[in-house]
Amino acid sequence: MGDGLNVGILGVTGAVGAEFLALFERRAFPVGRLVPMASARSAGRTVSALGREWPVVEPSEESFAGLDVAFFSAGAGRSREWAPVALAAGARVVDNSSAFRMDPEVPLVVPEVNWDAVQPEHRLIANPNCSAIILLMALAPLTRLGHVERVIVSTYQSASGGGAAMMEDLLRQTRDALDGLPPRPEVTPHAYAFNLFSHNTPVGPDGLNEEESKVVAECRKILGRPDLRVNPTCVRVPVLRAHSESVTVEFDGPAPSVEDARAALEAFPGVRVVDDREGNHFPMPLEASGGDDVLVGRLRPDPSNPWALCLFVSGDQLLKGAALNAVQIAERLFAPVGV
Amino acid sequence: MGDGLNVGILGVTGAVGAEFLALFERRAFPVGRLVPMASARSAGRTVSALGREWPVVEPSEESFAGLDVAFFSAGAGRSREWAPVALAAGARVVDNSSAFRMDPEVPLVVPEVNWDAVQPEHRLIANPNCSAIILLMALAPLTRLGHVERVIVSTYQSASGGGAAMMEDLLRQTRDALDGLPPRPEVTPHAYAFNLFSHNTPVGPDGLNEEESKVVAECRKILGRPDLRVNPTCVRVPVLRAHSESVTVEFDGPAPSVEDARAALEAFPGVRVVDDREGNHFPMPLEASGGDDVLVGRLRPDPSNPWALCLFVSGDQLLKGAALNAVQIAERLFAPVGV
Repeated sequence: MGDGLNVGILGVTGAVGAEFLALFERRAFPVGRLVPMASARSAGRTVSALGREWPVVEPSEESFAGLDVAFFSAGAGRSREWAPVALAAGARVVDNSSAFRMDPEVPLVVPEVNWDAVQPEHRLIANPNCSAIILLMALAPLTRLGHVERVIVSTYQSASGGGAAMMEDLLRQTRDALDGLPPRPEVTPHAYAFNLFSHNTPVGPDGLNEEESKVVAECRKILGRPDLRVNPTCVRVPVLRAHSESVTVEFDGPAPSVEDARAALEAFPGVRVVDDREGNHFPMPLEASGGDDVLVGRLRPDPSNPWALCLFVSGDQLLKGAALNAVQIAERLFAPVGV
Repeated sequence: MGDGLNVGILGVTGAVGAEFLALFERRAFPVGRLVPMASARSAGRTVSALGREWPVVEPSEESFAGLDVAFFSAGAGRSREWAPVALAAGARVVDNSSAFRMDPEVPLVVPEVNWDAVQPEHRLIANPNCSAIILLMALAPLTRLGHVERVIVSTYQSASGGGAAMMEDLLRQTRDALDGLPPRPEVTPHAYAFNLFSHNTPVGPDGLNEEESKVVAECRKILGRPDLRVNPTCVRVPVLRAHSESVTVEFDGPAPSVEDARAALEAFPGVRVVDDREGNHFPMPLEASGGDDVLVGRLRPDPSNPWALCLFVSGDQLLKGAALNAVQIAERLFAPVGV
């Protein structure tokens, strides 16, 4: 490794890929050699990072050779195809796709929440769904105050969850709407400008869409609570890059006080409490955007249940919801060897 | 009354006022003489309705003289000031403000839900809060299938709830954002373009904002269920004129089936079920906008509680949430006399 880690990124030309590159600089992630990878369509391009240009290559046995760590952010299909190749080449893989998240052999990790799930033999680590990560950052501190029985969450999800293409589509559709043109969605299934729609993933026979099913399953796995009851409603709103969530947390007895909840959240790394009742200032996606912290506020007792607390959360979908969480995993993976 | 009712509108120059005028035409509301009223700032203007221009006047004892019905949509302060004058002049008053909603002597009415609250002696009728109306249109049919114990609702509220000025501000702020300008909110307390924020009403010591407190109190009054447990989270999203709501309804025993819920909703006047899982097509504010029906869908069992059902609702805030509900009240008030 010499003067740094040899780092691959599969899916470097996407919205999350760009965040990886920025995070390497901002967090001084010890990159020696960088191997940006993308599909044939992007091969031949270069990306700028760490003061130089790096040629984008197609993934291959050669591209993974000699890598210490590879970040995967090109969808579950690409992950299934190339993770075995990367692992065989000796790299550790941090996979942002859903491909391996529910594999019992693969840890699914939010470092602040369940780093203890990672053992030395784990060379492939799954990065959770963005909505699940952002929810768990608010939920995990509260699990230390009492036994959480049930979580009811309605999301306000941003365009970035659909990648750079959906962000562009939101901007273009909004320009069209302001110009008085009829809706002409290209990436989204429905008109997006000044509109919202149920999350654009298939709905199963239980009535949950795939995003909602991921939130349920991943919260259970990450908290080690297969019995946790979760009721999610996932909705796409016309916001660019941060997800928000309205959350009710039910305990198995009287809920912790707002003061205790605030103290637990304030003490939790990666959470920033934004809870100014006087100023009517609570978590907002625009203030979460571009920041590492998940914003938590609107802490209040549930007026319908003395055993429950309510809160509102906003977190950058591309950062803590994706690239930042993955880089934090890699930082911890390689910290012990003192790189 | 001769060839129609003498009708006053206080607040005719607002977003709701404009809807009253359009509804009179569309529903053939039997207007004889129209007295559009607004503050001194707008007096001297005229408004177009029913094929002619009507001069806007300031409210006064004279302006209410001889009216059969007056619609009030100029805020609670104006309602408190002028409702007694209108009533003394012999008019019936349908008040869209919060001024009298919780007065035990004043019926608070969604006609499809609790018309039986209106007795002949009632000359002042309160029109409920928009979020409460839209929620109740989905909730009332379900109360016929079982005893509802608790309602958990997160709203996605549009700019129109803040009037024409907030709608304009959203459009202007969005244009600015697309032009790369920094946020410069004028009507909203926070940046609104591609953002969302907790409802812009003061937060009380219980942590609920005024909008949320209204939802709780008004749902209880309208359903005649002072014991109903309601947990609301009210959020303003960058949508122009329809409110959406993510709702979990808990019963005192096993929840009705999705099929029974759908049948009850389909049979309820003013509700349209939009629940196409295959096509991922559910209630959306853009499709609710401009329509009389409240759209209800995403019907599914609550995966966290077999005694609960989940649904998603969108309804036009200016129509069923305000002007339409008020006109429907007036239609029923005057229907018996066969005008």
